[in-house]
Amino acid sequence: MPAFSIDRIVEWGECDPAGLVFYPTFFRWMDHTFHAFLIDLGYSQNVLFEEYSGLTAPLIDVGCTFHAPVSYGDLVTISLDIAKVGTTSLNLLYRVDNKGQTAAEGREARVFARPNLGLIEKQPIPPEIRARFDALAMASSEKRDA
Amino acid sequence: MPAFSIDRIVEWGECDPAGLVFYPTFFRWMDHTFHAFLIDLGYSQNVLFEEYSGLTAPLIDVGCTFHAPVSYGDLVTISLDIAKVGTTSLNLLYRVDNKGQTAAEGREARVFARPNLGLIEKQPIPPEIRARFDALAMASSEKRDA
Amino acid sequence: MPAFSIDRIVEWGECDPAGLVFYPTFFRWMDHTFHAFLIDLGYSQNVLFEEYSGLTAPLIDVGCTFHAPVSYGDLVTISLDIAKVGTTSLNLLYRVDNKGQTAAEGREARVFARPNLGLIEKQPIPPEIRARFDALAMASSEKRDA
Amino acid sequence: MPAFSIDRIVEWGECDPAGLVFYPTFFRWMDHTFHAFLIDLGYSQNVLFEEYSGLTAPLIDVGCTFHAPVSYGDLVTISLDIAKVGTTSLNLLYRVDNKGQTAAEGREARVFARPNLGLIEKQPIPPEIRARFDALAMASSEKRDA
Repeated sequence: MPAFSIDRIVEWGECDPAGLVFYPTFFRWMDHTFHAFLIDLGYSQNVLFEEYSGLTAPLIDVGCTFHAPVSYGDLVTISLDIAKVGTTSLNLLYRVDNKGQTAAEGREARVFARPNLGLIEKQPIPPEIRARFDALAMASSEKRDA
Repeated sequence: MPAFSIDRIVEWGECDPAGLVFYPTFFRWMDHTFHAFLIDLGYSQNVLFEEYSGLTAPLIDVGCTFHAPVSYGDLVTISLDIAKVGTTSLNLLYRVDNKGQTAAEGREARVFARPNLGLIEKQPIPPEIRARFDALAMASSEKRDA
Repeated sequence: MPAFSIDRIVEWGECDPAGLVFYPTFFRWMDHTFHAFLIDLGYSQNVLFEEYSGLTAPLIDVGCTFHAPVSYGDLVTISLDIAKVGTTSLNLLYRVDNKGQTAAEGREARVFARPNLGLIEKQPIPPEIRARFDALAMASSEKRDA
Repeated sequence: MPAFSIDRIVEWGECDPAGLVFYPTFFRWMDHTFHAFLIDLGYSQNVLFEEYSGLTAPLIDVGCTFHAPVSYGDLVTISLDIAKVGTTSLNLLYRVDNKGQTAAEGREARVFARPNLGLIEKQPIPPEIRARFDALAMASSEKRDA
């Protein structure tokens, strides 16, 4: 079981003239899954803005490996797992499953930060949020080792 | 000098409620730069479709490292260089420059292929196109070694 | 009851630096609702392509009136009703509901057509599909008159 | 001569599996043209935010009529004219030209406003900005009457 997952029907407007999902869309799905995960945890971006003085979690590095094409009308599952929790950083792994196989595997390195005058100032992950990430990271790790 | 580059004004709709470019947009820019590069070479996706029996160049792996935030109204330059040319594959490097500094560095591994019944069948890069890529890869390599 | 509806959580990447949904997104939602409606009817765009010789339903006129702002994290319902069925054309009405009020009302005029050499050739709506649209248009009309 | 215009190469990722521009993209182009027009006038959204206390110009009604398909690689010109200037509102007309013909005609009704607690509070257009809009509206009107 991943830490979190969502299902989506692939949209007509998400596909290109070759009939395949336009690849930046995979990152839109990953970002949306991350935000839906935060909402599910009780620490939505709105909560981070309002109760944590404008805290946000921008990207420092991302990537995705594509294994199989995804097309209009496919029902995909995007799952999220926590790979590593740092003092200010969070490493996430994503998987896009389609028709019983893994179509894409993504990775995000985010940092908790406050934008300030056009710069990104890193902030320690608040302890109550970090505790939730740690528990999910440990569960993911045990699953991988099993 | 990169092999190819384009300038863009960052659009209002490309930015998120934190005031920063929504990160999948960087991949939209990279993909668009690749397609504009193909047009510039004389081998646009339309030419590949019509004169090369539906040839296309989907992604097998992509990534991006973010160094500095980019915001609405910024004038960015996206530059493309060819890192490696394989039998069927092409490795590209991208850089997004903003206000005199490198805001992001991207990488794409593409494969020349024809979609067929929902599968991607790899194809050798046609020799006349490969010759153009090789010349640009050599120029990029000399630039890096200089 | 509308002819069809879907629920969506408003995505972070769908909102702009003012914190509101970037307005072209409302049309993405409307278009996606139309395609999900076709899938639900059993006449998805894939079925139209494969069993109806490349039939598609491009737009000839669209519009949207905005009544209230929609923001990140809102749970919206997009509903679709059929306003009018012509020989080759279909008029649709959309409503986006958020927090108990109507946030936006949209309208699409589509035409059934086959793209041919860069032109759009209108086609009569196939009778079995038209019968489904007619029944839903009648139900919508009775609802409005009630 | 329109009040303002921009040229764009139609992007691969802006087109759908039918090979045509995904229609919400036309509104992205219109919105971007409006923002580029504000920048050109010297009253960019950033200036409105910083020097006019968070002023913005959200939509109250939009529409678009499509005359001819637009495809990947086409060079389009999006032109903007001011149709009407109200106390708090601004009506804009857009035209998308492609290959010597008008492919689409759009319209936006915007209102100057400040978002406040999830509501949109209308504001009079500042007189120095209104004077610029009025001059352009008069020029457009004379052009139409000629």
